[in-house]
Amino acid sequence: MSERAPSAERAAYYEHIGRNHMAPLWESLHSLVPPQPRPRVVPAIWKYSEVRPLVMEAGRVISAEEAVRRVLILQNPGTPGSSSITGSLYAGLQLILPGEIAPSHRHTQSALRFIVEGRGAWTAVNGERTTMEPGDFIITPSWTWHDHGNPSDGEPVVWLDGLDIPLVQYFDAGFAENYPEAQQPVQRPEGDSFARYGFNMLPVRHKVSDPTSPIFSYPYARSREALDTLYRNGELDAWDGIKLRYVNPATGGWPMPTMATFMQYLPAGFQGKTYRSTDATVFSVVEGRGTVRIGDEVFQFEPRDHFVVPSWAPVQLAALEDAVLFSYSDRPVLTALNLLRESRT
Amino acid sequence: MSERAPSAERAAYYEHIGRNHMAPLWESLHSLVPPQPRPRVVPAIWKYSEVRPLVMEAGRVISAEEAVRRVLILQNPGTPGSSSITGSLYAGLQLILPGEIAPSHRHTQSALRFIVEGRGAWTAVNGERTTMEPGDFIITPSWTWHDHGNPSDGEPVVWLDGLDIPLVQYFDAGFAENYPEAQQPVQRPEGDSFARYGFNMLPVRHKVSDPTSPIFSYPYARSREALDTLYRNGELDAWDGIKLRYVNPATGGWPMPTMATFMQYLPAGFQGKTYRSTDATVFSVVEGRGTVRIGDEVFQFEPRDHFVVPSWAPVQLAALEDAVLFSYSDRPVLTALNLLRESRT
Amino acid sequence: MSERAPSAERAAYYEHIGRNHMAPLWESLHSLVPPQPRPRVVPAIWKYSEVRPLVMEAGRVISAEEAVRRVLILQNPGTPGSSSITGSLYAGLQLILPGEIAPSHRHTQSALRFIVEGRGAWTAVNGERTTMEPGDFIITPSWTWHDHGNPSDGEPVVWLDGLDIPLVQYFDAGFAENYPEAQQPVQRPEGDSFARYGFNMLPVRHKVSDPTSPIFSYPYARSREALDTLYRNGELDAWDGIKLRYVNPATGGWPMPTMATFMQYLPAGFQGKTYRSTDATVFSVVEGRGTVRIGDEVFQFEPRDHFVVPSWAPVQLAALEDAVLFSYSDRPVLTALNLLRESRT
Amino acid sequence: MSERAPSAERAAYYEHIGRNHMAPLWESLHSLVPPQPRPRVVPAIWKYSEVRPLVMEAGRVISAEEAVRRVLILQNPGTPGSSSITGSLYAGLQLILPGEIAPSHRHTQSALRFIVEGRGAWTAVNGERTTMEPGDFIITPSWTWHDHGNPSDGEPVVWLDGLDIPLVQYFDAGFAENYPEAQQPVQRPEGDSFARYGFNMLPVRHKVSDPTSPIFSYPYARSREALDTLYRNGELDAWDGIKLRYVNPATGGWPMPTMATFMQYLPAGFQGKTYRSTDATVFSVVEGRGTVRIGDEVFQFEPRDHFVVPSWAPVQLAALEDAVLFSYSDRPVLTALNLLRESRT
Repeated sequence: MSERAPSAERAAYYEHIGRNHMAPLWESLHSLVPPQPRPRVVPAIWKYSEVRPLVMEAGRVISAEEAVRRVLILQNPGTPGSSSITGSLYAGLQLILPGEIAPSHRHTQSALRFIVEGRGAWTAVNGERTTMEPGDFIITPSWTWHDHGNPSDGEPVVWLDGLDIPLVQYFDAGFAENYPEAQQPVQRPEGDSFARYGFNMLPVRHKVSDPTSPIFSYPYARSREALDTLYRNGELDAWDGIKLRYVNPATGGWPMPTMATFMQYLPAGFQGKTYRSTDATVFSVVEGRGTVRIGDEVFQFEPRDHFVVPSWAPVQLAALEDAVLFSYSDRPVLTALNLLRESRT
Repeated sequence: MSERAPSAERAAYYEHIGRNHMAPLWESLHSLVPPQPRPRVVPAIWKYSEVRPLVMEAGRVISAEEAVRRVLILQNPGTPGSSSITGSLYAGLQLILPGEIAPSHRHTQSALRFIVEGRGAWTAVNGERTTMEPGDFIITPSWTWHDHGNPSDGEPVVWLDGLDIPLVQYFDAGFAENYPEAQQPVQRPEGDSFARYGFNMLPVRHKVSDPTSPIFSYPYARSREALDTLYRNGELDAWDGIKLRYVNPATGGWPMPTMATFMQYLPAGFQGKTYRSTDATVFSVVEGRGTVRIGDEVFQFEPRDHFVVPSWAPVQLAALEDAVLFSYSDRPVLTALNLLRESRT
Repeated sequence: MSERAPSAERAAYYEHIGRNHMAPLWESLHSLVPPQPRPRVVPAIWKYSEVRPLVMEAGRVISAEEAVRRVLILQNPGTPGSSSITGSLYAGLQLILPGEIAPSHRHTQSALRFIVEGRGAWTAVNGERTTMEPGDFIITPSWTWHDHGNPSDGEPVVWLDGLDIPLVQYFDAGFAENYPEAQQPVQRPEGDSFARYGFNMLPVRHKVSDPTSPIFSYPYARSREALDTLYRNGELDAWDGIKLRYVNPATGGWPMPTMATFMQYLPAGFQGKTYRSTDATVFSVVEGRGTVRIGDEVFQFEPRDHFVVPSWAPVQLAALEDAVLFSYSDRPVLTALNLLRESRT
Repeated sequence: MSERAPSAERAAYYEHIGRNHMAPLWESLHSLVPPQPRPRVVPAIWKYSEVRPLVMEAGRVISAEEAVRRVLILQNPGTPGSSSITGSLYAGLQLILPGEIAPSHRHTQSALRFIVEGRGAWTAVNGERTTMEPGDFIITPSWTWHDHGNPSDGEPVVWLDGLDIPLVQYFDAGFAENYPEAQQPVQRPEGDSFARYGFNMLPVRHKVSDPTSPIFSYPYARSREALDTLYRNGELDAWDGIKLRYVNPATGGWPMPTMATFMQYLPAGFQGKTYRSTDATVFSVVEGRGTVRIGDEVFQFEPRDHFVVPSWAPVQLAALEDAVLFSYSDRPVLTALNLLRESRT
C-alpha cells in the first residue's frame, strides 16, 4: 500500500469510521503484517562492574521489607518505561541483605531466580526452603507461595529475577495475594522435593496436574558437572558450544510453561557461527570472558554481566576464556503458538 | 508500596539508575503484579445497522486489489490506535464485491473467517477452494497461501476476519510474503479436505506435523444441526446455553494454536447466569435478538452485530428470540501458558 | 545354540533345576528370541457362501436369549481351540433374528461390530441406540453397557464381531457383569452422540477421560463418500489403494485403545504391491470381487467374505471390480509398545 | 450358559461348523469373558539360598560364550514350559564369571537388568559401558546393541534379567540379530549418557523419537538416597510404604514402553494393607527380611529372594527389618490398553 497521505476523500471517510471505532486495514497492513520481525527491543548489556554499586546502593535507599522486593529492573533501552527487557519478559537484580526477609506472596506470574553473587540466603516455595549458591537456578512457579530470606550472619546476596510479568500483563491474566505472615511456615526439610523428583524417579502415585516442575532448585554443581562431561566427550555445536536445557523431570518439558532456561559452555577460543531465533533471550554470565555480536553490535562480557538478544537478531558467541552462560527466553510460548522460527548460517 | 511521590533522595537515585537503563521495581510492583486483571480493553458493540453502510462505502473508497484486503478494523475503544479488539486479537469486517480478487499471500498470523452476509464468494487455501455461506467458519492457518474471490455475477460478501495480529506482533514473530500471482493455482476439487479429514476418518498415513486443523471449512449447516440436536436432547448449561467448540479432527484440539472458536445456541427466553474468564472474547451474532451484560454495561444484540468481552469481565447472556452466537478468543494460548482462570456464579 | 539333545550331565542338571521351577535359557534362546516372527496363525478365508448357511442354522440351533450372544467364532486354523483369529484378536459372526434381544452386559473387552447383512437391528450403548445398516462400523467400548435387538417385523441381521478377547485374557484383565434387565433403558434419542461429537465440534466442557471414542456409530454412507471423494481426486497408494482409518474425534486417535479399524477402496483393475506389517489383520469384504495373496496363498474374495493376514506375512491386494474392504488389527497396541514394524516393497 | 454337555443335535452342528474353522461362542462365553481374572500364573518365591548354588553350577555346566546368555529362567509353576514368570513377562538369573563375555546382539524385546550379587561387571549399550553394582537398575532397550562382560580379575556377578519375551512372542513381533563381533566398540566414556540426560537437564536439541529412556543406568546409591529422604520426611503409604517409580527423564514416562519398574522401602515393623492390581508383578529383594501374603499364601523373604504376584491377587507386604524391594510389571501396557484396574482395602 501507498505510504503517501490519504486523499481528502479517504481522510474524511477514515474520520467517519473512526468515530465508530473502526479503522482501514489497508493503511496499516504492511506494518501489522510485516515481511519479517521489527522488534522495538534492542540489544543491550548491563556490565556488573557498573551495576553492582547501584544495586548495593539500593540497600541503603530502601529496606527489603518496605520494598517487598528490592529489585532494580533491567529495562530495555528500546522500550523505556516498559519495565521489560524483551517484549514478553522481565529481568531484575534483587538484593537481600543479612537479616532481611522478602515477605511471602503469590501471583500468577512465574518467576526464576538465578544466583549472581553471595551465598547462604534462602528461597521458600510451598513450605520448603532451598539455600542459594551462585549459579543455582531456582523457580517459584505460578501461584505458589514464596518468600526469601538471608540469615543475620550472612552476606549480601544478589540474584537475577526472570519473570513473565509483561506477558501476564499483556494477557490481562495477573492475580496476586499476600501471605498473612512475612514468612510461610516451613513444612518439609530442605532437599525433600529434590529427593522426591530429582533422581530420575517419581513417587509412584504422583499425578502431573500442571506443567510446572515439581523440583524448584537446580544446583549449579550438577549443571556444571553435566556441561563438563559433555565437553570432555567432545561434541561441540558450532553455534551453541555445549548447551543444555533445564527440564521438568515429571514431563521432560520446560520447568515452567512460559520460560525456557538454558546453561551453556563455551571453551576458551570458541568462535560461534551465526544463528537467529524468534525467541528474544536474556543471558547471565556465570564464568569467563568473551564477546557476543548481536546484529551490528559487539559486547564484551565478563562474569555477572547481563545482556539481551532481540527476536530474530543475528547472534554470534565467542569465548576468550572458558565461559558459562545461563539464559532464558519465552521459547515455550512460541513453541505452543507454533511461532518459533530458527535459522543457522 | 506508597503511592506518594518518592523523596528527593530516592528521585535522584532513580534518575541515576535510569541512565543505566534500570528502574526501581518497588515503585511499580503493585501495577505490574496487580491483585486481579485491569484490562485497558473495554466492552463494546458494533451494531451492524450502523456498520454495514460504512463497510459498503469502503467498496467505493478503495478496490480490493488496491487494498489487498479491504477490511474495516474493529478497534477497541479502550485502546485507540491499537488495531486490536482485545489485547491479543484483531477483528475486522472484510468486503469483497462481485468480480474482485483479494490477492494471494501468506503470513505467520493465523486467520479465521466467519461469514456475515452474502454467499458465493470463495476462499482458497493451499490449492483448494471453498465456497462461503453465512455462518460458515473458515480458517486460513499460519503460513498457508490464501486468497479470496467473488464471481462476477455474485453479490457483495462480508465476513468477519479474526486474526492473532497483535499477538504475533507482541512476540516479534511476524513473517509474510506475497504469492507471485494474484491467485494461487487450484490443485484439488472443492470438498477434498473435508472428505479426507472431516468424516471422523483420516488418511491412514496422515502424520500430525503441526497443530493446525487439516480441514479449513466448517459449514454452518452442520454446526447448526449439532446445536439443534443437543438442544432437543435437553441439557441446557445455565451459563452458556448449548455451546460447542470447533475442533481439529486430527487431534481433538483447537483448529489453530492461537485462537479458540465456539458456536452457541440460546433458546428464546434464556437468562444466563454470570461467568468470568481470562480469555477476552469476540462475538458475532448469527441469529436472534438478545442482550449481553458485560460488567456494568448492557448491550442489545441482533443478527450480524459484533461485541467484545474483556478479560475477567462478568458476563451474562440472554435471548429474546432463539439466538446463535459465534465467538473466538485466545483461550488456547492461556491454556498453554496455564493462565486460564474461570469463575461461574 | 545346538539343536542336539543335551548331554546326560546337562540333562540331569536341567532336571534338577526344573524341580526348582527354573529352566536353562540357552536351550530355548533361539526360539524365544527369533530372528523374525514365526506366527502360529495362518492365512485363512471364510467364504460367505459357505458360512451363511451355517450362521442361519445357528438361528435354529439356539435362541439369542439362551446363547446370550449367538455367534460363530472364526477360529484360526493354525490355532485350533484358541477361540481367536489372530494371536490377540477374536472374530465372530453374530446373528440376530426378528424379535430377538441379545441381553445387556458389560465387560472390559472392547468390541466392534461391522454390519454384514440385513438392516434395521439396533445396538444400544450407554443409554443410546443406533440402527444398523450394512457397512456401518459400531463400537461398544470397554465397560459400557450394551445390548442388541431386532424389531419383530425386521429381517435377520448378521454382523462381524471383532473383540480383543484373547488379549484381555492374555493379560488376565477380564471383568464382566450382566445388567439386571435384558435391555438397558434408553436415555437419549438416536443420533445424540453423533451430533455431539461427530461434526468436528465438541461440547465446550467435554473432558477426555479415557481413550475411547465418544461416538459409537460410523455410518457407511459417510465412509463411502469419503472414499469416493479421495478416489476422484486421484492419489492412489500403490499398496493400499485409498485407505482411511476411523478416528476418535476427541483425540484424533483410534476409536478404541486396543483395535485399529480401516476402510479401503480398490478400484477395478487395482494390482497392489507387496507389504508386510507386524499387526495381524482381519478383513471383511463390503463390495466387489478381487484377490489377496498372503504369503504363498492366494484367495479369491467376494462381498461378505472374511479373511485374515498373520503378522509379517507378505500381502498383495488386487481388485477385479471396484472393491471396498473393512479391516481391523491390534495396531494401537503394537504402536504403544513400540513393536510395530512395516515394510513395503 | 449351561455347563452340561451339548445335545447330540448341537454336537453334530458343532462338528460341522468346526470343519469350517468355526466354533459356537455360547459354549465358551463364560470362560472367554469371565466375571473377573482367573490367571493360570500362581504366586511363587525363589529363595536365593536354594537358587544360588544352582546358578553357580551353571557356571560349570556351560560357558557364557556357548550359552550366549547363561541364564536360569524363573518359570512360573502355574505355567510349566512357558519360559515365563507372569503371562507377559520373563525373569531369569544371569551369571557372568570373571573373564567372560556375553556377546553382542540386539532384539525387539526390551530388557532390564537388576544387579543381585557381585560387582565390577559391565553392560554396554549402544557404544557406552556402565559398571554394575548390586541394586543398580540397568536397561537395554528394544533394538539396541548390547553385550556384557566381567574383567578377568573380577568376581562372579549375578543379575536379574527382566524381559518382555512372552509379550513380544504373543504379538509375533520378535526380530533379532547378532553383532559381527563379540563386543561392540566403545564409543563414549562411561557416564556420558547419565551426564547428558540424568541431571534434570537435556541437550538442547534432543528430540524424543522413541519412548525409551536415554539413560540406561539408574545407580542404587541414588535410588536409596531418594527412599531415605522420603522416609525421613515421613509420609508412609499404608499399602506401599515409600514407593518410587523409575522414569524416562526425557518424558516423565516409564523407562521402557513395556515394563514399569519400582523401588520401595518398608521400615522395620511395617504391616501393609491389602491391595490388588491387574499388573502381575515380579519382586527382587534388595535389603531386609519380611513377609508377603499373596492370596492365601505367605512367603518369608530375605535379600536376593525373588517372588511373583499374579494379576488381581490380594497382596500384603510386611517388614521385620528395614527392607528394600525392587519390582517390575507390564503396567505401561495395561495403562496404554486402558486395562489397568486397582483396588485398595
